[in-house]
Amino acid sequence: MSTSLESEHPIKAYGYAARDTSGELSPLTFSRRATGEKDVRFKVLYCGICHSDLVFAKNEWGITNYPVIPGHEIVGVVTEVGSKVEKFKVGDKVGVGCLVGSCKSCQNCATDYEQYCPKQVFTYGVPDVDGTQTHGGYSDHMVTDEHFVLRWPENLPLDSGAPLLCAGITTYSPLKYFGLDKPGTKVGVVGLGGLGHIAVKMAKAFGAEVTVFSTSLAKKQEAIEGLKADHFINSKDPEQMQAAMGTLEGIIDTVSGDHPIAPLLNALTPHGKLVLLGIPAKPLEIAAFSLIMGRKTIAGSNIGGLKETQEMLDFAAKHGITSDIEVIPIDYLNTAMERLAKADVRYRFVIDVGNSIKTE
Amino acid sequence: MSTSLESEHPIKAYGYAARDTSGELSPLTFSRRATGEKDVRFKVLYCGICHSDLVFAKNEWGITNYPVIPGHEIVGVVTEVGSKVEKFKVGDKVGVGCLVGSCKSCQNCATDYEQYCPKQVFTYGVPDVDGTQTHGGYSDHMVTDEHFVLRWPENLPLDSGAPLLCAGITTYSPLKYFGLDKPGTKVGVVGLGGLGHIAVKMAKAFGAEVTVFSTSLAKKQEAIEGLKADHFINSKDPEQMQAAMGTLEGIIDTVSGDHPIAPLLNALTPHGKLVLLGIPAKPLEIAAFSLIMGRKTIAGSNIGGLKETQEMLDFAAKHGITSDIEVIPIDYLNTAMERLAKADVRYRFVIDVGNSIKTE
Repeated sequence: MSTSLESEHPIKAYGYAARDTSGELSPLTFSRRATGEKDVRFKVLYCGICHSDLVFAKNEWGITNYPVIPGHEIVGVVTEVGSKVEKFKVGDKVGVGCLVGSCKSCQNCATDYEQYCPKQVFTYGVPDVDGTQTHGGYSDHMVTDEHFVLRWPENLPLDSGAPLLCAGITTYSPLKYFGLDKPGTKVGVVGLGGLGHIAVKMAKAFGAEVTVFSTSLAKKQEAIEGLKADHFINSKDPEQMQAAMGTLEGIIDTVSGDHPIAPLLNALTPHGKLVLLGIPAKPLEIAAFSLIMGRKTIAGSNIGGLKETQEMLDFAAKHGITSDIEVIPIDYLNTAMERLAKADVRYRFVIDVGNSIKTE
Repeated sequence: MSTSLESEHPIKAYGYAARDTSGELSPLTFSRRATGEKDVRFKVLYCGICHSDLVFAKNEWGITNYPVIPGHEIVGVVTEVGSKVEKFKVGDKVGVGCLVGSCKSCQNCATDYEQYCPKQVFTYGVPDVDGTQTHGGYSDHMVTDEHFVLRWPENLPLDSGAPLLCAGITTYSPLKYFGLDKPGTKVGVVGLGGLGHIAVKMAKAFGAEVTVFSTSLAKKQEAIEGLKADHFINSKDPEQMQAAMGTLEGIIDTVSGDHPIAPLLNALTPHGKLVLLGIPAKPLEIAAFSLIMGRKTIAGSNIGGLKETQEMLDFAAKHGITSDIEVIPIDYLNTAMERLAKADVRYRFVIDVGNSIKTE
């Protein structure tokens, strides 16, 4: 297996792979394709650790093919471009998020919604267009079709900006699409983790009045003082939930653990929208009545298209939005994963790949 | 009880009331208020029988106060107007739907969404602003604040137009609000009853390509030939449901019995919207994943505001949309209710109140 990974492509590559359901990551020598006409090759400088990397490494969704190198919040510097690349040159700072391919011809692709293309190619763990498996940013370099490469804004930090490539677009896109981006809009954010803390920053940058819901009272100070949220609600307190009834025009729910949905619907105004970003294991139980009385909406949202992701990066740079991060060397990866599983990080680990990976 | 009902207001009135959970309707002498400054008094000519009349008469929602006179699809002719009434004069044809009051000052009322006002007053079975109980259109006359009275379009039939006051606005409003009113939009309608058959007509009038979902194969011919739907899907047939996957931009679900939601979400395109109008007894089970992958929406919708209801009546008149009805005399009411409970009507009973009620 390892041998074929080393030889299936002409360019030697090196990364950290999960090899079994322990999810433990260890060095792997593999290979990447030669730079195609439309490809951008770049040295990885930083890569964020998304919670889904952990889930995928442990095969908790049951779809993992081992070995696999995770990482889809990747920032780097261009080292080579294909002959028909138009947007990038050697030395440019670039980013790659959750997608590295799509069909480019369906209705979704034609309208800049590559994330809903049935032939979308995720950045790691799935068959690429040539049939070989994709591998992500816990690696020395990437080679990616320029359509899926983002221009990195001049004044956006490389390390604390990296998580925006997943957590940033995942929260920015629904705020825009569901009309929660107007100044003065009353927006709730459920859960204050990697996604939630960025959701608060994005909503505040749009001018929203933001209410954070959390089951962890310890996060009140972080929410109000650290993230400048306007209100904090302990979602375990029935009185506080009752007081919030009918107050919010939209709620961004970032929680992937099972949790009650009815109190969140109650917190919406008429025409209010509850947008799910996390995937609880159990199905949600929804009373139709609670949607009908008030014309309320429950929706889901998944990252964003490439055009919108570029727009989000430019918006973040303009408004000084970055992730709160803890930068780690790559040999701290397994410890970081253990801490992430316990939500022991404020709020995102970012691997300093450029300075710590050993590419012998 | 009956004595106080006769004397609580100065104007004698006569109708058909449910008196217990049998739901059986029998004559009742009661009274209505004198014509206030802003009130319109009108003789009832026709009143549609909505399925919720049956549910309410039998107290299946547990909120019924007996005796109660149902009916919220009411068409009549004005007999008296208050001194400050501006929109109507004696002899005008008018309609009253599900609402006869609201606070007129909240954000909902200010934006023509009286149906979401917390102080909305339903046409029957609830306390009116003066504390007495409201009674509906299975009666000789009504007296209603002119804000809640609709102007009846000249060329809209009084009998087959009556059901539009509930079934019409309930289907028109979500088609508009959720953007399913553009020509060429692919719209599904689940259930072909009182609401469903109007939903098909409304969607067709907007220029949609309409797919009817029904568990009753017998309705295929009615859907395609009678209602000019473009496609019919037997929702019990997994192969037909599979073939419909990803094809519809919106679905109007009119079914109030328990039924699976997942196959309907599968039938939506990315960004597709499933709108619930019926209230199944059991909570719906929704996998968050099925909403997130495709940014899909589940929403509910409840009738419409007065401004939109007028717009809907004018639209129906312009496009020749009426309900398919069976006109009955009022002494057929209990038989009609029994048949309605068995869905034995194509598609709405309308009581010819004007010609059959005896007002001794």
